[in-house]
Amino acid sequence: MQRYFVPEEGWQESMVRITGDDRHHIDRVMRMQTGDSIICNAPEGRAAICTISNITDQYIAATINEWLDESKELPVEVTIAHGLPKSDKLELVLQKGTELGAASFIPFQAGRSIVKWDKKKAEKKLSRYQKIVKEASEQSHRTVVPEVEPFLDFDALLRKSEDYPVKIFAYEDEAKTKDFHGLSSILSGLEPGQKIIACIGPEGGYTIEEAEALKAHGFEPVRLGPRILRTETAPLYLLASISYHFEELRC
Amino acid sequence: MQRYFVPEEGWQESMVRITGDDRHHIDRVMRMQTGDSIICNAPEGRAAICTISNITDQYIAATINEWLDESKELPVEVTIAHGLPKSDKLELVLQKGTELGAASFIPFQAGRSIVKWDKKKAEKKLSRYQKIVKEASEQSHRTVVPEVEPFLDFDALLRKSEDYPVKIFAYEDEAKTKDFHGLSSILSGLEPGQKIIACIGPEGGYTIEEAEALKAHGFEPVRLGPRILRTETAPLYLLASISYHFEELRC
Repeated sequence: MQRYFVPEEGWQESMVRITGDDRHHIDRVMRMQTGDSIICNAPEGRAAICTISNITDQYIAATINEWLDESKELPVEVTIAHGLPKSDKLELVLQKGTELGAASFIPFQAGRSIVKWDKKKAEKKLSRYQKIVKEASEQSHRTVVPEVEPFLDFDALLRKSEDYPVKIFAYEDEAKTKDFHGLSSILSGLEPGQKIIACIGPEGGYTIEEAEALKAHGFEPVRLGPRILRTETAPLYLLASISYHFEELRC
Repeated sequence: MQRYFVPEEGWQESMVRITGDDRHHIDRVMRMQTGDSIICNAPEGRAAICTISNITDQYIAATINEWLDESKELPVEVTIAHGLPKSDKLELVLQKGTELGAASFIPFQAGRSIVKWDKKKAEKKLSRYQKIVKEASEQSHRTVVPEVEPFLDFDALLRKSEDYPVKIFAYEDEAKTKDFHGLSSILSGLEPGQKIIACIGPEGGYTIEEAEALKAHGFEPVRLGPRILRTETAPLYLLASISYHFEELRC
């Protein structure tokens, strides 16, 4: 069944009102009719099966039939802070990271990022990125849409990280030692609902100064398996491992 | 240090001879000089640090200095059998799947594959795919290059699967039940060195007939977390989970 995220103002007691791109998608792309069923997600994470009752050029109205009891969200809230990678790799991370359950994304300017963003460029990108995560959430049947937070410089990222009780960073140098710090021991220590921020370097990794600053701010270096992963593969490994740990292995 | 896979015929007792694209890469792309060091991988998985001793237009000669003791390979041999997906998604699976440790890949024609391949097209694609996995192996410091096996139809895939003692398939319907079969219990039962084949459906998943045939041939359905993953994300989740299970959690 097709799924749509409906913002707060679209919800009434027993009805949902859908406008904008989603109205167009239901009417023109899916060519649905009154009587057809869809799943509507509310902002706080709940979802309901709804039946389309009226299709107009301005909105689509649907009646709420049944609230669903779903558990599609990772039991811990994972934020991926990603040093700006080249070309469209960040879009891949946003799409796949959403499928894999990330709670939010923070793009940041890393010392070795080839791409440089200014404020104007960052704002323009942000609305595109929010569209990608919304669509990926619908596709993967998530019950909440991840946040894509405004672009930060490295110092602002360090300040922002103070909101998170658990902080890790993928650090290639850890993969070269036998005495690496275990991702599994960090995951095993997490409580349900806890927030964790994972910092991923751009191509070429962190500068030595960045790695030192991350450690000084309480980020623990982790390795993500013994192979060297590309920058865009690292967050996918991490999120899949977190899902496996909590949702499949149930450690 | 840059890493190159050198085929059997390039190895002599204390020397390596590199030709073709890799010769070009060392000479013209990396602009290396005699005296520079590289890592050369032999086909059976061993790797050595070598020093360039001679650069000609036909070959590059390098002296073997030291054999490395490396453990970069997953402790189990994972084959990803992927129902042909659309556009360049298979290339993404090959590149990322190689980084994540797959031992081999088998593309197959699934009932719901939009793309149809004939023998000629499959042969043309194969050499491109082999190049992708070779480059990804070098990038991720793997010690063996995964196989990309010739394209199969579904019946040939079923026959081929008899070579594998453990067989699983990602099945969306399993994700909808509470009584799903656990990936973790299958992984926990694997012995080091054992071969496992994982079958991934194309966009739209398997036909009912395919799912039944897979079960009848001993494939166990598994879910890959509670969210619905795109076809190209499923093998990455699976490989990352296998790496986490054996290489990080060390179950």
